[in-house]
Amino acid sequence: MQLAMVGLGRMGANIVRRLMRDGHECIVYDVNPDAVATLEGEGAVGAGDFADLAAKMTAPRTVWLMIPAGLTGRVVEEVAAVLEPGDIIIDGGNSNYRDDVRRAAALKERGIHYVDVGTSGGVFGLERGFCLMVGGPDEAFAHIEPVLQTISPGTGDIPRTHGRSGEVAPEEQGYLHCGPSGAGHFVKMVHNGIEYGVMAAIAEGLNILDNADAGLRETTHSAEVAPLEEPEFYQFDIDTPKVTELWRRGSVISSWLLDLAAAALQANPTLEGLAGRVSDSGEGRWTVKAAVDVGVPAPVLAASLFGRFASRGEDHFANQVLSAMRMQFGGHQELPAGDVLEAGGAKADSGGS
Amino acid sequence: MQLAMVGLGRMGANIVRRLMRDGHECIVYDVNPDAVATLEGEGAVGAGDFADLAAKMTAPRTVWLMIPAGLTGRVVEEVAAVLEPGDIIIDGGNSNYRDDVRRAAALKERGIHYVDVGTSGGVFGLERGFCLMVGGPDEAFAHIEPVLQTISPGTGDIPRTHGRSGEVAPEEQGYLHCGPSGAGHFVKMVHNGIEYGVMAAIAEGLNILDNADAGLRETTHSAEVAPLEEPEFYQFDIDTPKVTELWRRGSVISSWLLDLAAAALQANPTLEGLAGRVSDSGEGRWTVKAAVDVGVPAPVLAASLFGRFASRGEDHFANQVLSAMRMQFGGHQELPAGDVLEAGGAKADSGGS
Amino acid sequence: MQLAMVGLGRMGANIVRRLMRDGHECIVYDVNPDAVATLEGEGAVGAGDFADLAAKMTAPRTVWLMIPAGLTGRVVEEVAAVLEPGDIIIDGGNSNYRDDVRRAAALKERGIHYVDVGTSGGVFGLERGFCLMVGGPDEAFAHIEPVLQTISPGTGDIPRTHGRSGEVAPEEQGYLHCGPSGAGHFVKMVHNGIEYGVMAAIAEGLNILDNADAGLRETTHSAEVAPLEEPEFYQFDIDTPKVTELWRRGSVISSWLLDLAAAALQANPTLEGLAGRVSDSGEGRWTVKAAVDVGVPAPVLAASLFGRFASRGEDHFANQVLSAMRMQFGGHQELPAGDVLEAGGAKADSGGS
Amino acid sequence: MQLAMVGLGRMGANIVRRLMRDGHECIVYDVNPDAVATLEGEGAVGAGDFADLAAKMTAPRTVWLMIPAGLTGRVVEEVAAVLEPGDIIIDGGNSNYRDDVRRAAALKERGIHYVDVGTSGGVFGLERGFCLMVGGPDEAFAHIEPVLQTISPGTGDIPRTHGRSGEVAPEEQGYLHCGPSGAGHFVKMVHNGIEYGVMAAIAEGLNILDNADAGLRETTHSAEVAPLEEPEFYQFDIDTPKVTELWRRGSVISSWLLDLAAAALQANPTLEGLAGRVSDSGEGRWTVKAAVDVGVPAPVLAASLFGRFASRGEDHFANQVLSAMRMQFGGHQELPAGDVLEAGGAKADSGGS
Repeated sequence: MQLAMVGLGRMGANIVRRLMRDGHECIVYDVNPDAVATLEGEGAVGAGDFADLAAKMTAPRTVWLMIPAGLTGRVVEEVAAVLEPGDIIIDGGNSNYRDDVRRAAALKERGIHYVDVGTSGGVFGLERGFCLMVGGPDEAFAHIEPVLQTISPGTGDIPRTHGRSGEVAPEEQGYLHCGPSGAGHFVKMVHNGIEYGVMAAIAEGLNILDNADAGLRETTHSAEVAPLEEPEFYQFDIDTPKVTELWRRGSVISSWLLDLAAAALQANPTLEGLAGRVSDSGEGRWTVKAAVDVGVPAPVLAASLFGRFASRGEDHFANQVLSAMRMQFGGHQELPAGDVLEAGGAKADSGGS
Repeated sequence: MQLAMVGLGRMGANIVRRLMRDGHECIVYDVNPDAVATLEGEGAVGAGDFADLAAKMTAPRTVWLMIPAGLTGRVVEEVAAVLEPGDIIIDGGNSNYRDDVRRAAALKERGIHYVDVGTSGGVFGLERGFCLMVGGPDEAFAHIEPVLQTISPGTGDIPRTHGRSGEVAPEEQGYLHCGPSGAGHFVKMVHNGIEYGVMAAIAEGLNILDNADAGLRETTHSAEVAPLEEPEFYQFDIDTPKVTELWRRGSVISSWLLDLAAAALQANPTLEGLAGRVSDSGEGRWTVKAAVDVGVPAPVLAASLFGRFASRGEDHFANQVLSAMRMQFGGHQELPAGDVLEAGGAKADSGGS
Repeated sequence: MQLAMVGLGRMGANIVRRLMRDGHECIVYDVNPDAVATLEGEGAVGAGDFADLAAKMTAPRTVWLMIPAGLTGRVVEEVAAVLEPGDIIIDGGNSNYRDDVRRAAALKERGIHYVDVGTSGGVFGLERGFCLMVGGPDEAFAHIEPVLQTISPGTGDIPRTHGRSGEVAPEEQGYLHCGPSGAGHFVKMVHNGIEYGVMAAIAEGLNILDNADAGLRETTHSAEVAPLEEPEFYQFDIDTPKVTELWRRGSVISSWLLDLAAAALQANPTLEGLAGRVSDSGEGRWTVKAAVDVGVPAPVLAASLFGRFASRGEDHFANQVLSAMRMQFGGHQELPAGDVLEAGGAKADSGGS
Repeated sequence: MQLAMVGLGRMGANIVRRLMRDGHECIVYDVNPDAVATLEGEGAVGAGDFADLAAKMTAPRTVWLMIPAGLTGRVVEEVAAVLEPGDIIIDGGNSNYRDDVRRAAALKERGIHYVDVGTSGGVFGLERGFCLMVGGPDEAFAHIEPVLQTISPGTGDIPRTHGRSGEVAPEEQGYLHCGPSGAGHFVKMVHNGIEYGVMAAIAEGLNILDNADAGLRETTHSAEVAPLEEPEFYQFDIDTPKVTELWRRGSVISSWLLDLAAAALQANPTLEGLAGRVSDSGEGRWTVKAAVDVGVPAPVLAASLFGRFASRGEDHFANQVLSAMRMQFGGHQELPAGDVLEAGGAKADSGGS
């Protein structure tokens, strides 16, 4: 079928390539003319602006936006201005599903269908295919299904789930109509929330392994930290790059994210040079807020999000408050220098902590 | 090579089968004579007791224990009693690594090598192979390496990690010498700790999806729960079995544990009949205690463990305390019946919460 | 000064009493005529409706609303309809500060001042006074300050903070102008968020004390729970009602919430009859969402909120998912009956958890 | 009665002073002769060594140790060596209750009573009195009760708990026989665990207040952090020192720890100069491990402990792992410089997070 792609960044361009490979006709647009030219060279039809793009298509038009979430609102407006009733806009970016709900309602009044497609797969999607979580009206979903079939990974070599039989369902091919407008990005949001939790679980575990040698390290005994109580049980110098590689084979926690951890540690075994300031891109936040709204506990997802905040120093004032409070009771000083205490010395603890 | 297996439960028996398939010679023992007979029928040499087992082997003997952790101490003693200096005992069960450290030290005085092997892979290990995390002296590891190569999954069809080249390392075949005695079970312990976190992340996310219809549900407005503030954003009736199947294809969180979630929801889409009392088998606890000992944060792993405790009602007294405190201030009643409040009604909130 | 109170529930009525005691003139209104009559009997001027209320006051009028948050929007509209430019509406209820921001902006266009007052103190406020967190324009704050001085606790017998000298500041008397409209309820919201955390800390601690006898309890050893490893250290039968009373005297955690815990346990030492379904009233949720919005970690506040959700069974589907996943690997059954495992028995663990 | 104090640091000396004021006879010892001389000047009997100390007392002797926990084991041995059957050793320091259990058992064989006294109250204890949590045999408790009555705060001006009547119980005076040896320090341990949670709740809340101006701050929009979605709701410049002072008066969270926060912020309103590396002294760790052992959830207490670890950078390797993983998928760079993204630019997000 025919599809226009707006936004030819890595993901947009790769989706276009995947579509053309499978015989779909692609009209492409980007603010960067070079990006358009590149894909023209590979067989796409370039458009100079949105009006040109619309003119080059036959109704009902399907326009896929693959642009940063912050720009989506404006671009949806501009694209809708050149479309007609019955046409379809697809937002394949990382929008907040709430914006989908609002945009779909506004466009519906003008007869334009709005479909949100949460897209997972990273840079590997060109080969692997993208996992597609789709929200929108049935009619529009049915119209774009051929495109979704091409972009998604298909059944691949993943074993069929026990108990499934007969015709292969869409979800087994890697795309799913999750519900009305917003449902696609909602499911994608939760997917990313889970991703935060899985990543944190792996990172925390590796941190424990990395400190399994605590009993071997010479420590100036300090009052800052409670002393290690049983050093004889922490005498292991674990090779975390090897362990992550090991766990990829046959272990219960084998996963694509573990593959990434193994690759990252293979590339940089000590992770030297990384400041460990971990970014977050919105979905983790929205997931926690959704859990709070509907009243279900999400302690793991929240802890993984808060850990990212703390990694960027956003716990600093709270920690200063704690240190300041400790100085008030018992005269605990922050970072006391040298505290080899003797019986009856002036520093006997005051009972606070 | 020659190896004795003590404990012919599902895992022990499957390891024996995997070994025999690959040409190793297996002597087998179990308290249940039927289990011995079955494997004799498949080519193993049965032993009537530990003395018999030792007599049927040539030195240096290698005896693998695949028994419940609670019995390991006693069985190690009994097996050691029939062994000679230079022989090797392997504990392939789920022992606490601290017990390994103690046992290895005790056996070393008698010249017997002790090797701990953390084993992951579940019931699928016979086909898939087991991921093996090994602790113990270099010499003993070298001696048993042929057996480990057979039991582990090998390279399989898992793509090689970017940056690795040349000869395939042990960790790429699914076994690794992690360090001295205890290191194997330490790594396995952390593996299981991570597993708790990953499972909880998936479960929390699915719970949010399952409640994405909160705005559709008719709720008698009650004072027990803060009212849903923006019901228009929670109108999704998500099919969680389909979503888990979807995420198996091309998504960032694809993993073996997600495969299990998909299989579980395929088998029982509503999870009807499950009480949701989640067991824990020790490793999660040990992992959190290890994190506390060495002083590294593990909020995700701890939250997942505590969630299991709470699933079994172990938060009950704490919750009663909270309800009782709330009743003290402002006269909050637990579970007030009917609280459609009118302006100036007697129930205006007292400012507590 | 003159003030009208709308909403004569416990808190509204008590504030009126406190004001009249101190010589202020109070006009009172409630949907329940009996509540009006009661306060008329104590010296207040009753009003039959909002028009009557406005007519009985001299400009600039100050009208304090002490009504459930869910009704505030409508009542603000109705009251504003009878007021004139220069008049002041005070919302003393538990509104979301976001509503304050919106309402203040709308009323400002009509020349009416809007002041939000977060009020803490519970049923004890009549004697103790209420802690008042105020948001709104400077001019309106200055106008109502005499009323705030009466309602707040004053300096009382609380020792002055070290380093403070000279004139007693408003915050030392129990009221504070926290900032523009919304700031009062924002500070109150965070106050309640902290309250959730403090309550949970106390409740978790008491739960540990309540289980300090774990080593004394006869337990049928079950596979559901990892066995208690060192029962000799959990042989204490702690009297939690006495301990909470004890901690009120001289301990570092003495606090008003601990007083409540002691009172609750004195009244019902075993907390028998309490289901432990802990309500939440909104502020805890808003606090966590605010933390997420501004990107600061709030793991303790979030954990205390999620604990309340879980106390009401909102973790159920997540727990079912976990049980279902465990059944998939290794054939773990939920709640297995009888698991005294023997060496080599069929139940040797599969390496999952 | 007669009591010997070993360890004349701030707390030990203050307890001696409190005892002498009330007419008790004190024998004192410290490795620092000046500390002994000071108290001799105030009426105590000094001892030159433990033998001298024992000789100056009449049987049954009571010796109170007020020394750092790390030295207790050795000093108990040395003191026990000069004592006789029927004598009593009191450990008033911050020992792990497990050590009490072990020491009490060992001393019991020699006929010496061992009493553990968890002591809370900080530097203010001389005036305020100390909260005493006592473990040990009934007989020894009865013998030392007069001393406990003097050291504890007594009923003071704290209102009696509703429902209590008749004679004032020990716990209402600030001391309690919590159970056998170890019970005192167990209760003190949980007390400190709660303290961690309460402190963290306050600190997290203040951090949110401190960031309530997020919408006012000029931020270079960066890809590191999800943009603030509704800046109009975060326009408050809250004065946290004033707010903590405010909350001391009449609020639900008024507490001694809040008093400390107010004092700390009064002394240093911006907390300038504090690195925010928060120490921990052992009890918080033991509390979490105890919760794990007995299988009750303690998410708030654990989160507050882990927050302290993270404040000292112990989350660093975990955060590096997260950044490294993010770099693997989608080519997320850590701390990307300048990311004003344009439609179709090369940086369109890859769907990971």
